[in-house]
Amino acid sequence: MIQGHGDDTWRYTDIRINFSSNIYAHADLSELQAHLCRNISLIGHYPEPEPHALEAMLARKHGIPADCVLVTSGATEAIYLIAQTFCQALHYYSTGSLPTFSEYADASEMFGMQRQDTAFSPQIRFQVSGFRFQGARSLSLQPSALSPQPSALSPQPSALSPQPSAPDRDTLLWLCNPNNPTGRTLPPADILNLCGKAAITVIDQSYEDYTLVPMLSAREAAQKPHLILVHSLTKTYAIPGLRIGYITAAPELIRLLRHHVRPWSVNALAVAAAKWLVTHDTRAIPHLNVYLAETARLRQQLNALPGIHVTNTDTNFMLATIAQTTAAALKDFLAVHHHILIRNASNFKGLTPNHFRIATQRRDENQLLVSAISQFIENFQR
Amino acid sequence: MIQGHGDDTWRYTDIRINFSSNIYAHADLSELQAHLCRNISLIGHYPEPEPHALEAMLARKHGIPADCVLVTSGATEAIYLIAQTFCQALHYYSTGSLPTFSEYADASEMFGMQRQDTAFSPQIRFQVSGFRFQGARSLSLQPSALSPQPSALSPQPSALSPQPSAPDRDTLLWLCNPNNPTGRTLPPADILNLCGKAAITVIDQSYEDYTLVPMLSAREAAQKPHLILVHSLTKTYAIPGLRIGYITAAPELIRLLRHHVRPWSVNALAVAAAKWLVTHDTRAIPHLNVYLAETARLRQQLNALPGIHVTNTDTNFMLATIAQTTAAALKDFLAVHHHILIRNASNFKGLTPNHFRIATQRRDENQLLVSAISQFIENFQR
Repeated sequence: MIQGHGDDTWRYTDIRINFSSNIYAHADLSELQAHLCRNISLIGHYPEPEPHALEAMLARKHGIPADCVLVTSGATEAIYLIAQTFCQALHYYSTGSLPTFSEYADASEMFGMQRQDTAFSPQIRFQVSGFRFQGARSLSLQPSALSPQPSALSPQPSALSPQPSAPDRDTLLWLCNPNNPTGRTLPPADILNLCGKAAITVIDQSYEDYTLVPMLSAREAAQKPHLILVHSLTKTYAIPGLRIGYITAAPELIRLLRHHVRPWSVNALAVAAAKWLVTHDTRAIPHLNVYLAETARLRQQLNALPGIHVTNTDTNFMLATIAQTTAAALKDFLAVHHHILIRNASNFKGLTPNHFRIATQRRDENQLLVSAISQFIENFQR
Repeated sequence: MIQGHGDDTWRYTDIRINFSSNIYAHADLSELQAHLCRNISLIGHYPEPEPHALEAMLARKHGIPADCVLVTSGATEAIYLIAQTFCQALHYYSTGSLPTFSEYADASEMFGMQRQDTAFSPQIRFQVSGFRFQGARSLSLQPSALSPQPSALSPQPSALSPQPSAPDRDTLLWLCNPNNPTGRTLPPADILNLCGKAAITVIDQSYEDYTLVPMLSAREAAQKPHLILVHSLTKTYAIPGLRIGYITAAPELIRLLRHHVRPWSVNALAVAAAKWLVTHDTRAIPHLNVYLAETARLRQQLNALPGIHVTNTDTNFMLATIAQTTAAALKDFLAVHHHILIRNASNFKGLTPNHFRIATQRRDENQLLVSAISQFIENFQR
């Protein structure tokens, strides 16, 4: 596990504005909170060993069969579950491009897959050193074994229909779209190209509701035999404390993954919250046109500061560098003197000690951030 | 994952008395619930990636160093984490005796360990088929690698001090004490004997607060280089919906286990609840003298019914058989006609279709159970 994530408010006293996670900090969760308090006696009862009722509700929302959905204890459990399942058959992993979310590499390497240079340009690839079933439960990822059985999904031609011409039968490919920490999205043509190359492609769409760029739908993904989508209720509804997310994929892939699920992995309140959210279609974050316009404004203002460079983003968070000193020094200054928390992004593989990441908040708060960073730079230049 | 656990109230409508899990159903959780509702905004914030603050509190409670404690998402995550960690080095597993909690076998086999006949009489033992690291992260369980470094624990001679004379270097031994579903405890001499034989011995003490028989203390266990204890806040405080438990062991073992922990595995409300419970030293279950006396009374009354045989127990739950028909038929009758839920125990390895398990509840409820089973038997004999 890497040391240093966002939202590490416990390291400081009195953080008042939190730019450090990729989540909008002012989501109105009051109705959800009231619902959970009305149902707080759920803590005294076991949840379902597997939350099938919630899975059925999510399936209906996406218009896919229930056996295309697997609920997990956050997207993080989904990532580790995928690595555990496919390490039996696959020797390599790639994260497509760097920087990206570190848990893909951590999970893959925990289960014995190794990173190597790769054909997934401009990417990286890996060779395995073990951690494989060799016995009766061994998993063979032959194309036939993974070909979807006839299912309730009609075999519509989709934008993703071109079959891989030379799939790499030994690689698990992780893509984060929109990508953390860059906020960039992959062009559809790149997704098509990459999906066709790997044995299994995982697209972590945790931030899918924070962008206006079209994403793959769960329905499209469930028709592809080698594609897995990861979704995050944490991000969509700004509820990181509950730990709930889910996977959508073809039933054959879900069946393989389910072999590695342990019972009662999802807390009863998390299940209750998710059911309520799916039923009530709550919107926890600002309307995207407004929110992304504010993001663009914040980026422009930061870019106007000497020594600060913020790269383009397709979502609500953005990656930046400071030329004068380290992101760690900037983070400490902002926390101690301005009660502001940002994400020191220097521990993302591929980034430098000067990288930091911020997620757009309310306009008044964004303004305070710009002023505080400006003050830090002025102090530094004196 | 086996199909069919206790507390499966969702299968029926209108269950009013629940004997099916091993938990007292009338725990007074009102203060804890009020605490969680006051802190319900925690759902909007990431928990610590690993709950170190809670681990330190639990360590203080047990009088052991903080690096002897690892908090998990329920005892179930602990069991799977242990299997995952030691499958690298160990080919075999044993559950000591049957019947026992099925997750030990499920977790061991998920990670490639296999069951075989064993020297752990009267037990069962297993051979592995793979799922091992072979590369740089390979784990060697040499005695030297696992010998405890000098630690804050004074090396007091303990009841467990005899070293293994012929340890089986290739076996992970799981013991459940008190044992689920039998409710029996192991004599200290048997524990000593078994712990010395296996490479690693895990004692699941989830029900330690439901018996008057002395258990191993976390302090004793932390001084043994090959012993791991699993504890369950679920059982102690009757909060199965939250999913929180912990492991205590020597720091060297905790370090190995921690390599396989994923971030944010424990829900923020579960952490908050555990902190509150540890601080307030709440008693959620009846005083044991009273509760176990009622258990003995219930057992005696059930044993007086024709065709019912209930074995002896050291805790609040008990294993029984019905001669006239299956436990499944009895369970359905009780659920449909009396709104009573029992545990059909026939899916425990080593048991028969006639086995069921019940946990003692309030006296009036226990009386209703006896009457309802009596009625079922009378109907059956007509």
